[in-house]
Amino acid sequence: MTDFADQPRGCLYLVPNTLDLGCVGGEGQPPVPDLGSVLPLGVLQTAARLKHWICENAKTTRAFLKRVNDTAPLRTPLQELDIQVLPRPGKGHQGHAKTQHQQEQAAIQALLGPALAGHDVGLISEAGLPGVADPGAAVVLAAHRAGITVIPLSGPSSIVLGLAASGLYGQSFAFLGYLPTEATQRSHRIKELEQLSRKARQTQLVIETPYRNNALWEALLSQLQPDTLLSVSCGLTLVNGFSRTDLVGQWRKQALTLPNDIPAVFGWLAA
Amino acid sequence: MTDFADQPRGCLYLVPNTLDLGCVGGEGQPPVPDLGSVLPLGVLQTAARLKHWICENAKTTRAFLKRVNDTAPLRTPLQELDIQVLPRPGKGHQGHAKTQHQQEQAAIQALLGPALAGHDVGLISEAGLPGVADPGAAVVLAAHRAGITVIPLSGPSSIVLGLAASGLYGQSFAFLGYLPTEATQRSHRIKELEQLSRKARQTQLVIETPYRNNALWEALLSQLQPDTLLSVSCGLTLVNGFSRTDLVGQWRKQALTLPNDIPAVFGWLAA
Repeated sequence: MTDFADQPRGCLYLVPNTLDLGCVGGEGQPPVPDLGSVLPLGVLQTAARLKHWICENAKTTRAFLKRVNDTAPLRTPLQELDIQVLPRPGKGHQGHAKTQHQQEQAAIQALLGPALAGHDVGLISEAGLPGVADPGAAVVLAAHRAGITVIPLSGPSSIVLGLAASGLYGQSFAFLGYLPTEATQRSHRIKELEQLSRKARQTQLVIETPYRNNALWEALLSQLQPDTLLSVSCGLTLVNGFSRTDLVGQWRKQALTLPNDIPAVFGWLAA
Repeated sequence: MTDFADQPRGCLYLVPNTLDLGCVGGEGQPPVPDLGSVLPLGVLQTAARLKHWICENAKTTRAFLKRVNDTAPLRTPLQELDIQVLPRPGKGHQGHAKTQHQQEQAAIQALLGPALAGHDVGLISEAGLPGVADPGAAVVLAAHRAGITVIPLSGPSSIVLGLAASGLYGQSFAFLGYLPTEATQRSHRIKELEQLSRKARQTQLVIETPYRNNALWEALLSQLQPDTLLSVSCGLTLVNGFSRTDLVGQWRKQALTLPNDIPAVFGWLAA
């Protein structure tokens, strides 16, 4: 969208993160697993050579890179890395929304400064792939606009792992993010998405803030039709993770309590 | 959906494949890359210990396992592995559709025999994650029905990598599989999906048989609005792969010819 000057640019690497943040290493939690069980060695080696980073949270990014260092020694010492944090999306105060958007865009472009100056930059999410169900997509789009090459690296995505593990129809699926938290709105939305699933033969996938896992589960059980297939995957890639799928009518006869501190992916397919 | 007998069962491991099948190692193609650049070592080690496999194509599965063996020695020699092939979906001849479906279901259940007898089984796709845009989902669902534990392993999915690399909205997205190949139907569908993208603020993703990449690209350029963002990722995870996103109006001023033998993921987001 802009004329590209002929200067060499660095690349923007999309570096996948594990799915275990906040789920391991604490009291009563499983030990922190070897990164090599969820991330390719080649990806760890690429991460180890990057000096410039864009992330959501500098502290967790440093913790991740410390784990990377155990397998692939960092080329630049941890304390010398350039770690920039994404601007938090504004609340959109009336009348200032446009200005705020422009300020955010300017901040995002500034993050890409090292790439424009010829250095490779890593973009990392708090979990899974950057740009998928996280604010990283704005950086990727800005990179395309600036003529910076974008290189996505292979890694886990809870959404697509949850879909694979569900056994639900995988030739057409939609990820909707979070459902409304207000009960009436949520019920309405669940019914709407069930109809869409039936009409389009499309698996519907959502996530929820872990402490609301059980509230969402109860809402799904009460709102979906008995012959709809309902799946839940909790703690994907974790040793204590599980994936289960059954008819809503069957789920209603079972007592399932989900952990309230581990992320889950929910999916359904109407008959 | 059935009463579970109390016998110990094996697990069904969903083993990710690379995205390079048919794209490397041939004449004029890049060399076959190290599996460790796209698959975690832990996943290769799990694959190396499995004796029982379910796949789409036994020949390509053996070729994959031979590559696994280079990094993680197979516990069972290649020629002694039990490799079962998924039944091909029937064409649904009128009047016989139900019988055919029942036969397919019986065949799928038979594939899970080793798991019911206590052995771990690997399910593998021709590319990426099993059950995502491939016929493997039926096996996963049958496993859930039979009380077999399903364990999805971390690996690449071209769909979600294409989404991440696009920079398009990643908080809501839909994968639609293949569009109709007939031109009028395809045009209609593209316009319909653009409206859906606008109304729901949802990124729309599709794939195409590689030899039709350019036909689809031309159709997208002619049917989508100039202010719609359009992305294409071709050869994801391959050394010569690329991802680009621009406004349709800008794409129309550029000449882009896609390879006709390398898979691509297409995505768009209406303004």
